[in-house]
Amino acid sequence: MEYDGTRYAGSQRQPKEPTIQGELEEALYKLTGTHIKVSTAGRTDSGTHAFGQVVSFTTTANLDSRAFVFGLNHFLPDDIVVKNAETVSADFDPRRDAVLREYVYCIINSDNRSPVWRNRAYQVPGTLDVELMNEAAKMLIGTYDFASFTTEIDEGKSSRRIVYESEVSQEKDIIRYRIVANSFLRHMVRVIVGTLIRVGKKTMSLDEFKALLDYAEISKAGPVAPACGLYLNRVEYSN
Amino acid sequence: MEYDGTRYAGSQRQPKEPTIQGELEEALYKLTGTHIKVSTAGRTDSGTHAFGQVVSFTTTANLDSRAFVFGLNHFLPDDIVVKNAETVSADFDPRRDAVLREYVYCIINSDNRSPVWRNRAYQVPGTLDVELMNEAAKMLIGTYDFASFTTEIDEGKSSRRIVYESEVSQEKDIIRYRIVANSFLRHMVRVIVGTLIRVGKKTMSLDEFKALLDYAEISKAGPVAPACGLYLNRVEYSN
Repeated sequence: MEYDGTRYAGSQRQPKEPTIQGELEEALYKLTGTHIKVSTAGRTDSGTHAFGQVVSFTTTANLDSRAFVFGLNHFLPDDIVVKNAETVSADFDPRRDAVLREYVYCIINSDNRSPVWRNRAYQVPGTLDVELMNEAAKMLIGTYDFASFTTEIDEGKSSRRIVYESEVSQEKDIIRYRIVANSFLRHMVRVIVGTLIRVGKKTMSLDEFKALLDYAEISKAGPVAPACGLYLNRVEYSN
Repeated sequence: MEYDGTRYAGSQRQPKEPTIQGELEEALYKLTGTHIKVSTAGRTDSGTHAFGQVVSFTTTANLDSRAFVFGLNHFLPDDIVVKNAETVSADFDPRRDAVLREYVYCIINSDNRSPVWRNRAYQVPGTLDVELMNEAAKMLIGTYDFASFTTEIDEGKSSRRIVYESEVSQEKDIIRYRIVANSFLRHMVRVIVGTLIRVGKKTMSLDEFKALLDYAEISKAGPVAPACGLYLNRVEYSN
């Protein structure tokens, strides 16, 4: 699925607020006449977008994958779309079975707010040293305890993650951070970006940035960059 | 100025609909307490965006350029922003004095509608031969009668224009057309893009495309691509 998360209280169903899951389940109800619960690969916060969210559900409806794509898109609002559908085995779990996730975070480096990029990128004024940001980003590649780069760790759960790719690039006034990892801690990408911006503004040195991986202490890094710049780009499965 | 043109009936003031000019003149009234009429460098259609629109006005308000930027942005809605202001000579005309205009048109080449790019790019499904589109685009560079590439020519006015740059580029599923010319005919960029898409889909040959410059007959080219993909990028002045 692709969606513009601006209007939503995140991907996961909430009792009284519009959510991606809520909209999809409503479209599924309109299409099939039955109440169907969906599972989501990666939770996204309120305001966060996706180009490649993956969800799964079980249905007895006699519709093929193509009919699900067209039918759901007919009922979904214009800020959510189903891009593709396929039949999977009954034990498929989009969250547990995912082996890779890619996120992109988009910064507009501009002294003025940007009407065109509003709700789509985080506006950061002033000078940012993008090369320095990229050097810091590269330091995250590997297997580390990312506890400093999260706001919450589930009791008894590991905060070690494997980061495969981590890079900062620039095209005119748009600065993009791209990260690929096996999985992510809560707010991890947004905390990394908030910290990279400090490096870019030279209020944090590369040594201080590197030390955050050794500290491995919750919320040591940050601040948490706003949700509007974040995109869940893709989720990959082994088969 | 930069703006997201989605909510507006174009750049030029209309009696009952919201326009860029209307919003700016209202902000000027709130800031200065006087009714001020603004002149615009390039008219943009309803739904068309701008990163670099230029406007001018005459005022007796005792405010410097910086105060105008901050003050106007305080009163303007979040889909319009003033990026910069400077004092010019009293006879400056942003339309007549402009020597160059640059437009960018953004296509998302995708079989599904795109929630993230909606109102920001024109969604074109199927295969597009971007190299062929770029070859066609290059043919427009030079001084030609662009009558085929417009929907309206003012009585007695020339439809000759000088195109300095014209190119199609691609980055993943985003195809961008960029054109720089001394000035533009009505709907010219949108007609060019509609025609380039026919070339990309191979329903028009490069020879047929080239012939449109020789025909020089109104609306011979086209169709007119939607306004939502179009951005007025910059306007340049000789001094």
